[in-house]
Amino acid sequence: MRAMVLRDSRLTVEEVPLPTPGPMQVLARVLACGICGSDLHAARHMDQMIEGTVRASGRSAWSTLDTARPIVMGHEFAAEIVSCGPGAEAWEPGARVTCMPMLIAAGAPNGFYSIGYASEAVGAYGEYVLLSAPLLLRIPASVPDVVAATTEPLAVGMHTVRQAKVQPGEHAVIMGAGPIGLMTLLWLKKDGIRHVTVSDPAPGRRALAARLGADQVVDPRAENLADAVFAAAGAPAPLVFECVGVEGTLEDAMELVARGGRVIVAGVCMGEDRIRPLVGINKQLTIQFVLGYTPQEFADSLAALGDGSIDTAPLLTREVSLDELPAAFDALADPRDCKVVLRF
Amino acid sequence: MRAMVLRDSRLTVEEVPLPTPGPMQVLARVLACGICGSDLHAARHMDQMIEGTVRASGRSAWSTLDTARPIVMGHEFAAEIVSCGPGAEAWEPGARVTCMPMLIAAGAPNGFYSIGYASEAVGAYGEYVLLSAPLLLRIPASVPDVVAATTEPLAVGMHTVRQAKVQPGEHAVIMGAGPIGLMTLLWLKKDGIRHVTVSDPAPGRRALAARLGADQVVDPRAENLADAVFAAAGAPAPLVFECVGVEGTLEDAMELVARGGRVIVAGVCMGEDRIRPLVGINKQLTIQFVLGYTPQEFADSLAALGDGSIDTAPLLTREVSLDELPAAFDALADPRDCKVVLRF
Repeated sequence: MRAMVLRDSRLTVEEVPLPTPGPMQVLARVLACGICGSDLHAARHMDQMIEGTVRASGRSAWSTLDTARPIVMGHEFAAEIVSCGPGAEAWEPGARVTCMPMLIAAGAPNGFYSIGYASEAVGAYGEYVLLSAPLLLRIPASVPDVVAATTEPLAVGMHTVRQAKVQPGEHAVIMGAGPIGLMTLLWLKKDGIRHVTVSDPAPGRRALAARLGADQVVDPRAENLADAVFAAAGAPAPLVFECVGVEGTLEDAMELVARGGRVIVAGVCMGEDRIRPLVGINKQLTIQFVLGYTPQEFADSLAALGDGSIDTAPLLTREVSLDELPAAFDALADPRDCKVVLRF
Repeated sequence: MRAMVLRDSRLTVEEVPLPTPGPMQVLARVLACGICGSDLHAARHMDQMIEGTVRASGRSAWSTLDTARPIVMGHEFAAEIVSCGPGAEAWEPGARVTCMPMLIAAGAPNGFYSIGYASEAVGAYGEYVLLSAPLLLRIPASVPDVVAATTEPLAVGMHTVRQAKVQPGEHAVIMGAGPIGLMTLLWLKKDGIRHVTVSDPAPGRRALAARLGADQVVDPRAENLADAVFAAAGAPAPLVFECVGVEGTLEDAMELVARGGRVIVAGVCMGEDRIRPLVGINKQLTIQFVLGYTPQEFADSLAALGDGSIDTAPLLTREVSLDELPAAFDALADPRDCKVVLRF
């Protein structure tokens, strides 16, 4: 089968072996797979990501990731079942499915491989992928393939908002209108928050934020964000979502947020970052780092796409073929696009 | 009257004008005043402290602090009332009192001066100080002057522990056995936490921590702190108190704490600090910065000293005279001492 391979920080489309489903696994044909910001990071800084993860977690799925071997990334997928391994026969070929990117397998560290970040299991940037039957969720008929492929980042947004525990009457600022910032916006508005400001220097992303329900959009290079929030919402924001992940943004968030407020860090800043603890202390801030989602949040996100209470379609600004995928990675350095999806 | 004056980062004992109590103020003779870590910082880095506070708070009591003018610091005091201004006559001369270090005064920013950090109001590193009658608390007869002077840092420790919201069964690590680390220890043990590890490179401070109830003391230069905690408590600590305030300690705390855990930052790191956000994200940590205390916490701390449920006397490792005070500031760079108190 054909797949995009990451080897030595280079991305190429190559022929790779078609995998065979083991016990409780299915072979599925990839219908769509979103490009995640973490994949962009990983393509350039895989060693740094592994180091950070191992420092945090000790032995984990990542600690066995061998960057000397080729990796097929891709973990935001919709797929169609082709064949079922032993014990997975309850699923029928042709079923459209998605699931958390974990492949349960004998001998894997902690019992599973991270789909998209493992040498032993291919991700969904290829024609076929192995999935775990016990994790599969059926995609509702009303949800197009490319929209179903946004379930994973939508679950990240849901987790981010759930962890923030928004209190009645609070307003919020989202720094960064990339996919995670906008998924966070969708959930905040669904939950009925009274006012959300979205800040992003890219005009196209600000327009998208406004279309998705932002009460205010601000170009932080053109106006003072704190002043703009104060003018529109009547007070400094008690809640700031850092969805940029670039060095310095966390410090900006600490200066922006109200005294006693919370900074929720969903942006993944590689390497070291600088902060001024004195600002945190004087304002008695809480900084909360969030990651991933629970199985329930993943299922609830797919259900929200199915019942139409959340629509991520506007975020999908471009579809590319497998052959166009390596170039799409380079093009995402330009933030005119939001979520780019590989579509077969 | 005589007082220790800070001018151009130099400390000297000089003659300064005896203040006169205004409306709702009392003139009090200082009995004892503790040296606070913030004073040590301020003596060297006052401009940096002001900048950080103004960045955090905008206009505040500190924003009017003029470092070109001499300052009498000192905000951890016990004092004896000498005379009462208009409206403060309900207090009798001779009464032993302490209070939060705020001097309510007409024309002051936000209505008060920070006692010990203001050009317009003297702190308690001198023979006399003005205090606000509405804030005064009577020192119980059982509490010696020097112990009463620890009410303020004890309230900081109480606030730190209250903000941490310790859950049943949790254990904790306190990094740094200076006064704030040890005050935090006293409250954690009073609240019945099951296990506390205190880490400090200074042998004298570790011995003090053990005497005050630490279940484990560790020299982080001699053994791996994470391994020592795991061996003694059976799991990584879900709660780490950063009571050092030196660059790099916050990152160490983030690596030490358990996944999903909380780092409570009570140490005041001047200037910038470096962290690895990836560690915070992968472990889904919460970093909570704490500062000061509430009026209730201040009163409760004095009450705990009064009823004997907390004893801070072991922390008082040295008493100095006013003439010895400038040299005591220099000597505190050596951590053999813990809390040093000016005593008249």
